[in-house]
Amino acid sequence: MKKIILASASPRRKELLTTAGVEFEVLVSDADETIPDGTAPTDAAMITAEKKSLAVAEKCTDCVVIGADTIVVLDGKILGKPKDEADAASMLRFLSGREHEVITGVCLTDGNKTEKFAQVSRVKFYELTDGEIAAYVATKEPMDKAGAYGIQGKGCVLVESIEGDYFNIVGLPVAATVRALKKF
Amino acid sequence: MKKIILASASPRRKELLTTAGVEFEVLVSDADETIPDGTAPTDAAMITAEKKSLAVAEKCTDCVVIGADTIVVLDGKILGKPKDEADAASMLRFLSGREHEVITGVCLTDGNKTEKFAQVSRVKFYELTDGEIAAYVATKEPMDKAGAYGIQGKGCVLVESIEGDYFNIVGLPVAATVRALKKF
Repeated sequence: MKKIILASASPRRKELLTTAGVEFEVLVSDADETIPDGTAPTDAAMITAEKKSLAVAEKCTDCVVIGADTIVVLDGKILGKPKDEADAASMLRFLSGREHEVITGVCLTDGNKTEKFAQVSRVKFYELTDGEIAAYVATKEPMDKAGAYGIQGKGCVLVESIEGDYFNIVGLPVAATVRALKKF
Repeated sequence: MKKIILASASPRRKELLTTAGVEFEVLVSDADETIPDGTAPTDAAMITAEKKSLAVAEKCTDCVVIGADTIVVLDGKILGKPKDEADAASMLRFLSGREHEVITGVCLTDGNKTEKFAQVSRVKFYELTDGEIAAYVATKEPMDKAGAYGIQGKGCVLVESIEGDYFNIVGLPVAATVRALKKF
C-alpha cells in the first residue's frame, strides 16, 4: 500500500483526516497559487489543489498525495484570507445576512495518475451588527481564514444554516476524500 | 447578570458553548425523560429539554438554565441511543443511503420565565456496506449517541451532506442558543 501524504499545513485538514481514521504524513510545498483571472471558482479550487499535490508528489515516490484548496465565493467574487482587520470586517459585512458558497477542490495524485473533484457547500450567515463584526474581528480568528471566518471556531455563532458537507466548509470534504482514496 | 447553567452532561454541548465564548457552569439533573407515545418528535425534544432545565432551575437561584435534547427521526420513528452493538448496526442499516432528521429541543428557564424552541437539520447518509457498518460499530463510537452515530467523530465519513445547522446535529444549535440567551 502506498503511503498517504497530506500536502497541506492546515491543522484543520490534518485533524479531519485523523478523525476519519486515515494514517498519513504531512508534507507541505510552496506551490504557486496564482490563478488566471476569469477562471471559474470551482476550477480555480481544483487547479490550486492539483498544483499543491503535484509539487509534493515530485518529492515522494510510492505515495498518494492529497492536495486541497478552499475558497469562499459570493456574487462571483472569490474571497481569500483577509489582508488586515479592516479587510476582515469588510468581508464579514459583505457576507452578513446572505448565502455564499464554500468550495473545496481536492486532488489525489501519485505523480502519474491524478484525480480531482470539488465540493460546493452553501452557508447562510445571520444578519450581523457592526458590533458583532467588530467583536469577532477582535478575536483575531478571521485573519488566517478564507472569507474571514471559521465555522468550527467562534465563527459558529455567525452561521444560521448550511447546505452540503459541513467538513467541506472547515477545509476538507473528508467523507468524499476517504471514498476517493479507497478507489484510488 | 444571572449565572448561566448548562443542564447537560454531554461533553459535546459543553465544548460548543465554550467555543462560542459563553461563560457557564454545568449542573446535571436526572429528570424523567419519558414522553407519552404519539408525541410529535419536535414536541418530544422540547418537552425533554424543558424537563431537564426545570429540574436544574429548582436547585439554583438567579440562574438561566439551558436544557437540550437531541433526537434522530426517520419515517416518524425516533431513534434513541442503541441498546447494544446489534441495535447500533440495525439503526445504521436503517439510516443507510437515506435522509433523516436530527431535532434538538432547547429550553431556557430561570424558574419563572421559560422559552423553548427546536431546530431541525436534515442529514443524508451514504449507502453503507455491511463491512462499513461493522467497522464503525467496532469503534464503539455509536454506543452513547442518538441514532448510533456521531457526525463530529469517526461517523463523519458516513454522511454525504446536511441541510440546516451542523451544530444542531452535534447536540446544540449553538448560534440560535446564544442569540436566545442574549434576548432572555
